Amino acid sequence: MSLNISYDDNNVFARIIRGELPKVAVFEDEHTLAFMDAFPQSEGHTLVISKLAKAVNITDLDPDEMCRIMRTVQTVSQAIVKALNPDGFRIVQFNGEAAGQTVFHTHFHIIPVWEGQSLGRHGEGMADTKDLEKIAERIRNAL
Amino acid sequence: MSLNISYDDNNVFARIIRGELPKVAVFEDEHTLAFMDAFPQSEGHTLVISKLAKAVNITDLDPDEMCRIMRTVQTVSQAIVKALNPDGFRIVQFNGEAAGQTVFHTHFHIIPVWEGQSLGRHGEGMADTKDLEKIAERIRNAL
Repeated sequence: MSLNISYDDNNVFARIIRGELPKVAVFEDEHTLAFMDAFPQSEGHTLVISKLAKAVNITDLDPDEMCRIMRTVQTVSQAIVKALNPDGFRIVQFNGEAAGQTVFHTHFHIIPVWEGQSLGRHGEGMADTKDLEKIAERIRNAL
Repeated sequence: MSLNISYDDNNVFARIIRGELPKVAVFEDEHTLAFMDAFPQSEGHTLVISKLAKAVNITDLDPDEMCRIMRTVQTVSQAIVKALNPDGFRIVQFNGEAAGQTVFHTHFHIIPVWEGQSLGRHGEGMADTKDLEKIAERIRNAL
């Protein structure tokens, strides 16, 4: 599948933004939303998206909107470090199915890492919403 | 190793910025520098850094400087897509040794991906500078 696909208004994140699908939110402002990945690769795996930009890839994003997303990435990363005390964390953003993208609304992953603990494969298993809510609360309290 | 390490003025990227170590540059402006990863995971693997911010992790970065880095990430990604026509590409940023960080000056990877071609492990082998220069020229021509 090529990088040049058009934006589908019914992708999972568009439906989450419209409130048609549930989410476990961590942070929200006028432009951006951070919420728990339902298929986490580690405890605290969080996604950050624009609520306004209909962009499939980072190359399609309005630069100012990209900056707003990154400010939220930074804010939430700081809270994750404070709340969960990981040994490290990764910021990851996939463009195109070949690169591992599964939802075609630009999104940034924040993936906490602990030494000696390997990351799960994305999409390996769906998390229990109650478990995600507990972690999200710890992150929100550290914001 | 913890996330809270202090910035070392003699890290490899600081030395590249000062011109003490060679680089194959793709793009440079007042604040940022994009150059070929010397240990590429795929053809066109490029790094983007701030030349001014002495930040180990993304959480240490001045938000405005982070935005400038991301604008360069976006500009160079567009050129990589145009020049090399990958099936996809990944933006990756590691914080902490546990997360895979090896140079402790905040940097973003742009990693082009082709279907059916697995990514090399980072640091697996050093590329030939002449080969990197040829790829960099194609990317620069697409800027």
